Amino acid sequence: MTEYRAPTREMAFTLQHVAGFAEMVKACGYEDASEDVVSAILEEAAKFAGSVIAPTNAIGDRTGVRLGQDGVVTTPDGFRDAYQQYADSGWASLQFDPEFGGQGLPFSLAIPVQEMWHAANMAWGLCPLLSQGAVEALSENGSDTLKQSLLANMISGHWTGTMNLTEPQSGSDLSGIRTQAVPDGDAYRIKGQKIFITWGEHDMAENIVHLVLARLPNAPQGVKGISLFAVPKYLSGKPGEDPVRNDCRAVSLEHKLGIHASPTCVMSYGDNDGAIGYLVGEENQGLACMFTMMNNARLTVGLQGVSISERAYQQARDYVSERVQGTAPGEQGLSPIIRHPDVRRMMMTMKSLTEAARALAYTGCVAVDFAKGNDVPDEVKARQQRRADLLTPMVKGWCTEIAQEVTSLAIQCHGGMGFIEETGVAQHYRDARILPIYEGTNGIQALDLIGRKTLRDQGKAMAELLDDMRTWSSSDSASNLLTQERQARFDQAIAFVEEATRLVLERRDEPLFAGTVAFNYLMLCSTVTAAWLTLKSAGAAREQDAGEGAFSAGKQITANFFFDHILPRCSGYLAALRAGEESVMALPETDF
Amino acid sequence: MTEYRAPTREMAFTLQHVAGFAEMVKACGYEDASEDVVSAILEEAAKFAGSVIAPTNAIGDRTGVRLGQDGVVTTPDGFRDAYQQYADSGWASLQFDPEFGGQGLPFSLAIPVQEMWHAANMAWGLCPLLSQGAVEALSENGSDTLKQSLLANMISGHWTGTMNLTEPQSGSDLSGIRTQAVPDGDAYRIKGQKIFITWGEHDMAENIVHLVLARLPNAPQGVKGISLFAVPKYLSGKPGEDPVRNDCRAVSLEHKLGIHASPTCVMSYGDNDGAIGYLVGEENQGLACMFTMMNNARLTVGLQGVSISERAYQQARDYVSERVQGTAPGEQGLSPIIRHPDVRRMMMTMKSLTEAARALAYTGCVAVDFAKGNDVPDEVKARQQRRADLLTPMVKGWCTEIAQEVTSLAIQCHGGMGFIEETGVAQHYRDARILPIYEGTNGIQALDLIGRKTLRDQGKAMAELLDDMRTWSSSDSASNLLTQERQARFDQAIAFVEEATRLVLERRDEPLFAGTVAFNYLMLCSTVTAAWLTLKSAGAAREQDAGEGAFSAGKQITANFFFDHILPRCSGYLAALRAGEESVMALPETDF
Repeated sequence: MTEYRAPTREMAFTLQHVAGFAEMVKACGYEDASEDVVSAILEEAAKFAGSVIAPTNAIGDRTGVRLGQDGVVTTPDGFRDAYQQYADSGWASLQFDPEFGGQGLPFSLAIPVQEMWHAANMAWGLCPLLSQGAVEALSENGSDTLKQSLLANMISGHWTGTMNLTEPQSGSDLSGIRTQAVPDGDAYRIKGQKIFITWGEHDMAENIVHLVLARLPNAPQGVKGISLFAVPKYLSGKPGEDPVRNDCRAVSLEHKLGIHASPTCVMSYGDNDGAIGYLVGEENQGLACMFTMMNNARLTVGLQGVSISERAYQQARDYVSERVQGTAPGEQGLSPIIRHPDVRRMMMTMKSLTEAARALAYTGCVAVDFAKGNDVPDEVKARQQRRADLLTPMVKGWCTEIAQEVTSLAIQCHGGMGFIEETGVAQHYRDARILPIYEGTNGIQALDLIGRKTLRDQGKAMAELLDDMRTWSSSDSASNLLTQERQARFDQAIAFVEEATRLVLERRDEPLFAGTVAFNYLMLCSTVTAAWLTLKSAGAAREQDAGEGAFSAGKQITANFFFDHILPRCSGYLAALRAGEESVMALPETDF
Repeated sequence: MTEYRAPTREMAFTLQHVAGFAEMVKACGYEDASEDVVSAILEEAAKFAGSVIAPTNAIGDRTGVRLGQDGVVTTPDGFRDAYQQYADSGWASLQFDPEFGGQGLPFSLAIPVQEMWHAANMAWGLCPLLSQGAVEALSENGSDTLKQSLLANMISGHWTGTMNLTEPQSGSDLSGIRTQAVPDGDAYRIKGQKIFITWGEHDMAENIVHLVLARLPNAPQGVKGISLFAVPKYLSGKPGEDPVRNDCRAVSLEHKLGIHASPTCVMSYGDNDGAIGYLVGEENQGLACMFTMMNNARLTVGLQGVSISERAYQQARDYVSERVQGTAPGEQGLSPIIRHPDVRRMMMTMKSLTEAARALAYTGCVAVDFAKGNDVPDEVKARQQRRADLLTPMVKGWCTEIAQEVTSLAIQCHGGMGFIEETGVAQHYRDARILPIYEGTNGIQALDLIGRKTLRDQGKAMAELLDDMRTWSSSDSASNLLTQERQARFDQAIAFVEEATRLVLERRDEPLFAGTVAFNYLMLCSTVTAAWLTLKSAGAAREQDAGEGAFSAGKQITANFFFDHILPRCSGYLAALRAGEESVMALPETDF
């Protein structure tokens, strides 16, 4: 099985010079985040990911997690140790508020670091991912008292956090939530059952803070009657006494296709007197509070797509470089299979998709920071916020879709060995399959892109993105990097996005149209944006080594490949979009 | 978990009226294969598949197979019984020679029947699949003596067969085979190790006949020095004595991503004195003999792609019809999710791909029969053989590629439930992943299509296919079925295949070009051919119900969807093909 080595040079380059981190840091006054500091952090993280986390991945998949009679969830060998080291080394606190012990670094600097955790062990990485989301929701919405009592321990990583939305009857549509919260003094009593709760119970940390959506008595029906509560596993005891176990527990674990080592819990709240919970934000504003958590979680789930793609790519690369079979064109004797053109095609597909997805994910995350910059003019902040909002569904959707393709190709590169579990590459494929589903299915992302992100602002954010791409496309950089043919293909692809956006806006009053074309719109916009970033990447690399080094040559080739093999898929997306709802909706549902 | 109900009407319709079975039966004088007989056989098979085989599928996945200390491979509960019933009911012998107890029906009639076995339980279905291949190889290449001693028991299904090609160092490239065969009287002594031997050992049948590729002493190097041997697990004893156990055994079973219940064996031959084997065909002609087996096996592996797609589609259909979530456009209250446009898009994608793949697979198989017809003029036979040869890599390649997409969409339609193993849909996804790999990876299929099937005959077979499509496209049927826009798209797609074929022929002396474009060529040609068959299907349905019934309406909608959503992918394939090897091969292999 291949070790994981984080591509730190690639990561630092993409962050600084493609995603706009250098510019953001300057504009926002993040003086501590110099290029050297970033590099040092990435190198340290790479060591930790490679030597401590990655070795737990295969064993975690094999042994999975276990729920004992006593309600304790036991994690696989090495998980707890790795987590303790992670928290003790301060990795959990990079981007959080110094007031509560955080290091005050940009969110987007934590992104390549987190990419490494997920690549090293996606199941393990989900625990920090959810915890980070919980910190964000509490930081933005919690009362001072709540923040004082919870945040320091969560930011240090000694406590973890979870996100409790789904109930059996209520998943993509949260309006049907039934969990109840009844006021009890300063707190509330929570009763209900939640499913699909990632890391809902485990043995890696001292305490777990569950963020739970529930309904107050007499709350309005639907999503306007949902409130958010913080429900710690352990409550503070009286002074001098031990903490008190709250009335919540994991009642079962799911047996899943992948991420076997991530406990997916059915959580029961209030089997006895009701679990003590504390209101987060205003009553009946729970969904909005949860969204502050969910938006960044969507970006980081997209990032997981990058991570698992990178891991699968590395494993395939090592295999095809070593496996000898057949004679490649122009060779004598047997060749390592990387010399066979069809294998090379698969490797280039994996490489170009993974790098483009990384650029897209990082770009979205830098925009999140930029939009919050202290010294940044309001107009710039607003524009960056629009960009972040627009890119979020693309990052979540596209980066997780390409992860399916990349992990599948990694299996294919292994031939029969890819299907054997001991090889290890099948795990990445199984793990990756959750990504288009959780944190809002990609169908939901597509509806978000078309509804909240395009129709609601009448295409303003999309027009700004198109402007940026047009400007780039007509620049000298572009004409230096692109052959005439590829330039024409880029211009055409941008025009496709324009046409699609126009159609979407024109037919805004036809809800069937938006719903049927949403997924193809997501794929179209994302692919063109990714192509642009691939090109920016080639341009930036050329500036780095004056176009004379292997690095810029590689970036140019990868961009060329993307323009030849990936970008042309856009014709298909646009055609499906132009066709609209007719052939999608015509068949009566009883005729399926 | 959804039961499997074979779509017998759809199958009979596709076989008779799309794939050309009715015409073939008439031309070849298969008097016994009337429409009524075919329907009766399919209905009986559907009962058997649904009530006997399908219930073993989930348990087979869960428990898998076990190799005991005594070398016995134990199959999951119900497998042995199902197999015994299968053999006793005569299902194994449908298409084989009456001289050895076969029923003398067309191969292509056995195809929908086998589709049902694989849909019911793909792991189980592999045992008959391999046995059938072994019967074909022996029937065409075995000596009379060998046929007399083996075929009757194999055709009845009481003995099974296997295919032993791969060795650890020799998979896609068989030139490196090292297993040895030394003459010993009328027979040979075989020594060597084979890997990835499907159903190499099991408890379902009385005997197993292994077909083994091995090398004679002083055989020429490479593939011209490989011979084929039949190595029965049990040899006939002396008259009146028990059979003798041959010197071959399974030494381990692989732990795989899917098809857990199909024993994938490492087989050891000749640990003691050498396993007794009998030469099949001429010395050093083993590869050609194996190819008679492999060609049909490639068609049936493509068929497995249809099967698993159908099974996954049925499970998704049942789920999306029952699962209620959110309010669909134009509705009040909660809706079953099939009413949500993006879910409907996924369902239509699954349906149209599965039906098109079925039509493609059946068409390839009917051509195999047609090419062997007794009363058919030589010219027609030769043309049908070219068609069968041309379609074989498309059936294997495309039908297994779409199976990845369809089984993945089936998971996606389930949301979070799709990721839970107990739901059962993840099994189809895991099982399906072997299909693009075994029986020649899809990369190998693509090279076969471009090399042996296009370059070798200078594009003759492809030109004939293009002619047929053009004729159809300019017929009244086509203009009745297609809007002007879709008609234009079809004509353009046919022109794409023409251009691609021309490019491939023009650049035939550039081996890097053929290798880099092969996969996109396979996808392009297959998609356009599938589109044509989708259209033929709509036309034939209209003839059936005079265009007034739900059946023809459904076929028309499915064809429309294929033309709107699937066919436009061809632009992407052609663009990649036009781009050639430049961006694929430019990156030095050490820079990956």
